[in-house]
Amino acid sequence: MSDDLELEDCIDACDDCASICLESLTGHCLPAGGKHVEPRHVILMLDCVDLCRTTADFMRRGSPNHARLCAACADICDACAESCAKLDDMEECVEACRDCAESCREMASAAA
Amino acid sequence: MSDDLELEDCIDACDDCASICLESLTGHCLPAGGKHVEPRHVILMLDCVDLCRTTADFMRRGSPNHARLCAACADICDACAESCAKLDDMEECVEACRDCAESCREMASAAA
Amino acid sequence: MSDDLELEDCIDACDDCASICLESLTGHCLPAGGKHVEPRHVILMLDCVDLCRTTADFMRRGSPNHARLCAACADICDACAESCAKLDDMEECVEACRDCAESCREMASAAA
Amino acid sequence: MSDDLELEDCIDACDDCASICLESLTGHCLPAGGKHVEPRHVILMLDCVDLCRTTADFMRRGSPNHARLCAACADICDACAESCAKLDDMEECVEACRDCAESCREMASAAA
Repeated sequence: MSDDLELEDCIDACDDCASICLESLTGHCLPAGGKHVEPRHVILMLDCVDLCRTTADFMRRGSPNHARLCAACADICDACAESCAKLDDMEECVEACRDCAESCREMASAAA
Repeated sequence: MSDDLELEDCIDACDDCASICLESLTGHCLPAGGKHVEPRHVILMLDCVDLCRTTADFMRRGSPNHARLCAACADICDACAESCAKLDDMEECVEACRDCAESCREMASAAA
Repeated sequence: MSDDLELEDCIDACDDCASICLESLTGHCLPAGGKHVEPRHVILMLDCVDLCRTTADFMRRGSPNHARLCAACADICDACAESCAKLDDMEECVEACRDCAESCREMASAAA
Repeated sequence: MSDDLELEDCIDACDDCASICLESLTGHCLPAGGKHVEPRHVILMLDCVDLCRTTADFMRRGSPNHARLCAACADICDACAESCAKLDDMEECVEACRDCAESCREMASAAA
């Protein structure tokens, strides 16, 4: 796969992860309450949304520093996936976070 | 200095850096033209604005992952400072980037 | 007061409102639980944070469209202040939202 | 078309417009130079990227205030389309801005 295709795939994975996490937070976690609104979980979801957006924009700009962001994004997505996996009905979010973490990790190592 | 004061200082440094870089980009670099609007420089300025914002918000949320972001932010601020230092009349921007890099690096190492 | 001073004041009011709302959401509302984490309230807080940031950045860029954003921002800050005023211990957030709404409304009408 | 489908379409139009404008700015306007990097044009492009993102997130959160943002977003997208239409090789950007403006305007009037 060419470098440009890998970049496009990683941008898509970040966009999907940010969108799904934000929609899940407000459409599922907040209405569910209980463990779904524990501070640590909500904070991780917001961290994940913000960093996926920022990382995707570094790639869209063709930034020379995008790999640095991809490495950080992979770690935060992993942490978010782990937090979501402990809660009911968050499979879509877990999958989006794991896909994004994997894609970002490849992007980070390709540039290293 | 207490941990909370250090955190507040780092949030302020990130906020200042983001604001000054965005105002310099649109109020100084774009009107100046020439080397001030070379793609690599403008992209670095936009990278710096975005990541300083994201990093400050991780700290505002009390995120357990804020040190990870601070480490990345320090590197991008260094790169932006270096790019600005080669151009005329960007001393304020250089200083804000260097202050932010230093504060973020301390925050990152304190949490390590 | 000169136009530039008014603009600086409005940027500051937007920055303060965004920062205080985000810190209150994660530092007060989420730990408090109950009515503080009802979906409508949390969504309004996140709306307010996002739009205050966006509006401040339009002003920082010297955008010809900043008054359009200030008008919208004033309305969302009013709605957020109203939501916060019904909850315990959110006086700081109410005040920041009302200050920002007032400042944005002046900026919007000055440019009309 | 159901309300949910309209909402999804408008979110997609905002996402596309933000992505295409940011990629065009850094991948086409900055390398092209000249009129493509005039302050007013670059500022409008950045305004458009920011507001499309913010508007899409209001819709993703199911915010009761999303129509207010859609109305503002339509106006800024129109202004950006007009600025891009005067420059060479920006057809994709013009089209994305016009599509987004139309979709946002429908969303704003549907909620009025």
